Amino acid sequence: METVDILLTGGMVLTMNGVMDRYADGAVAIRNDSIVAVGPTATIQADYRAKEIIDCRGQLVMPGLVNAHTHMPMTLLRAMADDLRLDVWLMGYMMPTEREFVNEKFCRLGTELSCAEMIKGGTTLLADMYYYESEVAATIAGAGLRAICSQTVLKFPAPDADSYEDSLAYTREFVQEWKGHSLIVPSVAPHAPYTCTDEILQACAAIAIDYGVPLHTHILETRQEADDSWREFEKKVVNRVADLGVFEAKTIAAHCVHVDTEQIMLLKQHGVAVAHNPTSNLKLASGIAPVKEMLERGIKLAVGTDGAASNNDLDMFEEMRLAAMLVKGATFDPVVLPAKDALLMATRWGAEALGLGEITGSLEPGKRADLVILRRDPLHNVPHFERDPHSVYSQVVYAAHASDVQHTMVNGQWLMRDRELLTLDEDRIRSEASGMARQIDQFLIEREDNVLNKLVAIGGVHQEESFEIQVKARIEDDSLIRDLLEHSLVSVVRHNHYRQYDTYFLFSDEQQGRVRYREDDFIDEHGQLISARTRLTYTIPDKAAEFDEAVLLSHSRFIAPADRPLRFYREYFQANRECEIQKDRLRWHILYKGVLFYLNYDRIMVPETDARFIEIKSRTWSKGDAEYKAALTTEMLTDILGIPSDARVRLEYVDLCPYSP
Amino acid sequence: METVDILLTGGMVLTMNGVMDRYADGAVAIRNDSIVAVGPTATIQADYRAKEIIDCRGQLVMPGLVNAHTHMPMTLLRAMADDLRLDVWLMGYMMPTEREFVNEKFCRLGTELSCAEMIKGGTTLLADMYYYESEVAATIAGAGLRAICSQTVLKFPAPDADSYEDSLAYTREFVQEWKGHSLIVPSVAPHAPYTCTDEILQACAAIAIDYGVPLHTHILETRQEADDSWREFEKKVVNRVADLGVFEAKTIAAHCVHVDTEQIMLLKQHGVAVAHNPTSNLKLASGIAPVKEMLERGIKLAVGTDGAASNNDLDMFEEMRLAAMLVKGATFDPVVLPAKDALLMATRWGAEALGLGEITGSLEPGKRADLVILRRDPLHNVPHFERDPHSVYSQVVYAAHASDVQHTMVNGQWLMRDRELLTLDEDRIRSEASGMARQIDQFLIEREDNVLNKLVAIGGVHQEESFEIQVKARIEDDSLIRDLLEHSLVSVVRHNHYRQYDTYFLFSDEQQGRVRYREDDFIDEHGQLISARTRLTYTIPDKAAEFDEAVLLSHSRFIAPADRPLRFYREYFQANRECEIQKDRLRWHILYKGVLFYLNYDRIMVPETDARFIEIKSRTWSKGDAEYKAALTTEMLTDILGIPSDARVRLEYVDLCPYSP
Repeated sequence: METVDILLTGGMVLTMNGVMDRYADGAVAIRNDSIVAVGPTATIQADYRAKEIIDCRGQLVMPGLVNAHTHMPMTLLRAMADDLRLDVWLMGYMMPTEREFVNEKFCRLGTELSCAEMIKGGTTLLADMYYYESEVAATIAGAGLRAICSQTVLKFPAPDADSYEDSLAYTREFVQEWKGHSLIVPSVAPHAPYTCTDEILQACAAIAIDYGVPLHTHILETRQEADDSWREFEKKVVNRVADLGVFEAKTIAAHCVHVDTEQIMLLKQHGVAVAHNPTSNLKLASGIAPVKEMLERGIKLAVGTDGAASNNDLDMFEEMRLAAMLVKGATFDPVVLPAKDALLMATRWGAEALGLGEITGSLEPGKRADLVILRRDPLHNVPHFERDPHSVYSQVVYAAHASDVQHTMVNGQWLMRDRELLTLDEDRIRSEASGMARQIDQFLIEREDNVLNKLVAIGGVHQEESFEIQVKARIEDDSLIRDLLEHSLVSVVRHNHYRQYDTYFLFSDEQQGRVRYREDDFIDEHGQLISARTRLTYTIPDKAAEFDEAVLLSHSRFIAPADRPLRFYREYFQANRECEIQKDRLRWHILYKGVLFYLNYDRIMVPETDARFIEIKSRTWSKGDAEYKAALTTEMLTDILGIPSDARVRLEYVDLCPYSP
Repeated sequence: METVDILLTGGMVLTMNGVMDRYADGAVAIRNDSIVAVGPTATIQADYRAKEIIDCRGQLVMPGLVNAHTHMPMTLLRAMADDLRLDVWLMGYMMPTEREFVNEKFCRLGTELSCAEMIKGGTTLLADMYYYESEVAATIAGAGLRAICSQTVLKFPAPDADSYEDSLAYTREFVQEWKGHSLIVPSVAPHAPYTCTDEILQACAAIAIDYGVPLHTHILETRQEADDSWREFEKKVVNRVADLGVFEAKTIAAHCVHVDTEQIMLLKQHGVAVAHNPTSNLKLASGIAPVKEMLERGIKLAVGTDGAASNNDLDMFEEMRLAAMLVKGATFDPVVLPAKDALLMATRWGAEALGLGEITGSLEPGKRADLVILRRDPLHNVPHFERDPHSVYSQVVYAAHASDVQHTMVNGQWLMRDRELLTLDEDRIRSEASGMARQIDQFLIEREDNVLNKLVAIGGVHQEESFEIQVKARIEDDSLIRDLLEHSLVSVVRHNHYRQYDTYFLFSDEQQGRVRYREDDFIDEHGQLISARTRLTYTIPDKAAEFDEAVLLSHSRFIAPADRPLRFYREYFQANRECEIQKDRLRWHILYKGVLFYLNYDRIMVPETDARFIEIKSRTWSKGDAEYKAALTTEMLTDILGIPSDARVRLEYVDLCPYSP
């Protein structure tokens, strides 16, 4: 009779091994970090005596769940900003917040929170991808979980690196440091093909190959990525990555929502494992991955929660349940991915996909003791059918909840007993996370409080201080303009024709200024569109003074190229009111008495009106210069054009908007 | 200062009222069955003194969840038979089991189990549809939940009625009995347009209108239903139901997965409320309902779990979460149905859809006190952001779990405190449900054990005992047949030409007999298909005896029209082996010496072979008759056709199948 450390007896044991052995009254014998034997309780108890015997009657004993793709520290951003478009969410909230807050401490705390939630939800193995991965790895190891820890590399400056060269150096160091750890497998994470250059992808693959560690990346999460790749590289994403030789490394590809048949076959050919993230793909509206075809073509499939910022929890019960159901509804096929296979995806297949199939993912002698014990008595699991061998898998996948997990063990060590965490201090984590949320709230409140900060947060902005002399008047038609242009004191330097589509974002608090999104369409002499430009202009409230009948405007303007669609800015700025102005503008740069003026003849198209305006403007730098130019504009308006005083208007075009409260 | 019964203080109160009032430190005052006041704790405490004050600090107080479509007793069938096609699941498992087990006791027990699960998961109002609805209603009322209880009527015999006339009479009685109850609203449930005649639909509507109670039905759960309706009625389903005047009753339509724009507009026009069941629709592969369009067109939308046999739990947290996410992924629109609206669907909108918006669904003075108190400290909810007013809805919808529900109150009564059920005995329910599962297991095991029982379970079978004399021989071609047909002692009574496509389902245990699915294609003289017929034949092992060189076969055969596709039978019978035989059959009914014989000339097409066979058969009833007919067949074969003894074969066509183990 052999002695072991722990015997789990009397439970319904789901081994999830190659032949799906189940024992209705089963036992598991554990010594040190490993499983020594699995079988009927009577047999195991006849062969083994244990220091500790745990009675699992009425409970389920099964392998711990495998979360194949997540970003651990991001639990600290859970529900911070939800139900936004991907770009608004990512560029508007996640990245600015990450830029501000992500450091070693943030990563440790967020990882602790995630580890605690995972242990409580029965996850024993996970694949992370984030920054400061050494901190993440140390925290996970401290919590006692098993993990693939992937250090992110991308072409932009990252929270933990000013350049990708730094990232690559840090990654190499990180891999060296953690290689061979009993719980942690270090890994290289080129963030995604669209955020990495070819050179970065290849450098990452080289590290993975050199050290024999996995490469973990995002592939084709969005349709946009597919379109962009074709435009930029004239290649499909998977083809591009394959051609670069990246798949020579043992690769884990997260998402793969928009892979087509050719790309699925390439993934299969290169043995790339896919981490399916159904919740995140639905919540961010990325789409529904072709899981049925991937299964049929023999792709190694695993399932992951993605980060808590897009899920919003790390609940593998919900995730495998959704994986099992979504593919059925999406393909009208109720027999694809039955519960048994969904549980395999979340256990043995998951471990195999992560390259750890030899040591975990099923309850088999010789494998590490990574397991969970589930209560079956919570009413949502009741009753239990025994006729159909699939019923127990149905119960686990379709009905069981994370809260049914009673005990969690990794590497032979208990991480949770009777729902008490043994390696983490739940209260401290909760309290520190709460403190972090307060800081982030404060940061975002200050930023939101100030439209300018919000603008700055999305990048690309430059400031422009301008002082302008301006007069504006209603006129009937352009005949007056012709008079001015043909006047002997005037010479035309340049002429342009635009159509301008302006959308103003207005805020209840006028001190917030306003944001204008402008599309300038340049029109040739035949009335055809030559080119278009989009710009974002933020104007803080005017300080205006009058000189004679002209106006001195003092703008403090911030201008940025508007490289995202109007919709982005609409959702991002969350203005109280929006106003649309479209106009046809004829513009001349003229010299009058040798001074440069801008002359605009504007016909307002939207809102519908017959209004036509003449504007004469000039830049200025000093009070004296302003007075002089004001006098010149008055001369042009009054003396040359004969426009009466009462035709002059003080309005700005935004004032033409009907006020809708 | 007024006195109330209960004050809930210090919680984050989500009223879900028309302006979505929230109180970070809020209170609810409750007297008898109703809410008296909701507001900031300080204000409420200044105005009200209470017999009982419950400190809700750190917790969420919100309306209880509304499960808008379910079948309460079906929790007893949870995970009984999963991951099957809808027809196999419904016709093969659910309906036979229901026919056998559903009675008053089953409905009470199943409803108790569902009530217990719902109270634990924070549901306070539900809409049920089942049989013996008076038992269901009494059980729900006993458990203290609020419900719409809908008595099912359909054109087939039901567990609680031999005919629909009985159903209608029972329904009328049921409605009279329960109308005016403080917790139960009785309702009429014509099961679905495809399971009801026009007459039934109209009779149901008449009852609903007479008594002013809701009508609850399934509409367009599957694409099949859409196709069938068009074929049978030349109308879309919703148009047909609308034309019948059914929507004059206040209607709740479950599913509506396959409604098109026209039908959505009709539903809107008639004020029909839709209960969306995303889990069930995915799990049964029915599809994804057009929730975005229904929302845009102003349909009153609610969300339901459907029965636990197709979900497999009654967890409204999972359901609203899935509702919120699925529509985003399916439409590539991440801003549709934000968390706030998903929670509305599961609270106030749900109550409004069920016609109870006046009394429940939000926390407002004058409404009944139907509410839940949720813990926010479980780690999957941590941290909490306060900047964005939507964060708290995100937390509830995307992260909270049913297990976070700490207390549940309906109509001012506590149904659960600190997760202890107060109106139901959890242990007794669990134990009785377990007993029921054992009986059902046993029933299904006996049935599965016996192919005949399985056949009988799907209905339409008639038994046919037959004793047949038969000889069969290989021949080269049909010239011999011509000789026989032209013989002076032979006259041809009838001639047919078929192509026969046979699929045999074979079982390892040969005592199980075998099932043959046959498609008979009738061919005219030009070789064109006239018509086709499909039949299912179950044959138990032959008891054969030889007479001379002919064979006496004693069949005990069961024949049923095969009105479902081959695939159904394949998945349903789960045979160990399958065998396909196709042949071209020329058949003559002949009289030889005045005795009726069947003469077949069979050319085997599949498996590929040159084999051609002649068969001569005759029915028989006595040993003497059998001996006489055996002698006649031998005369024909030997004397007229000159077929040698060794050309005669004992095989049956199924024996031509290559054996694949």
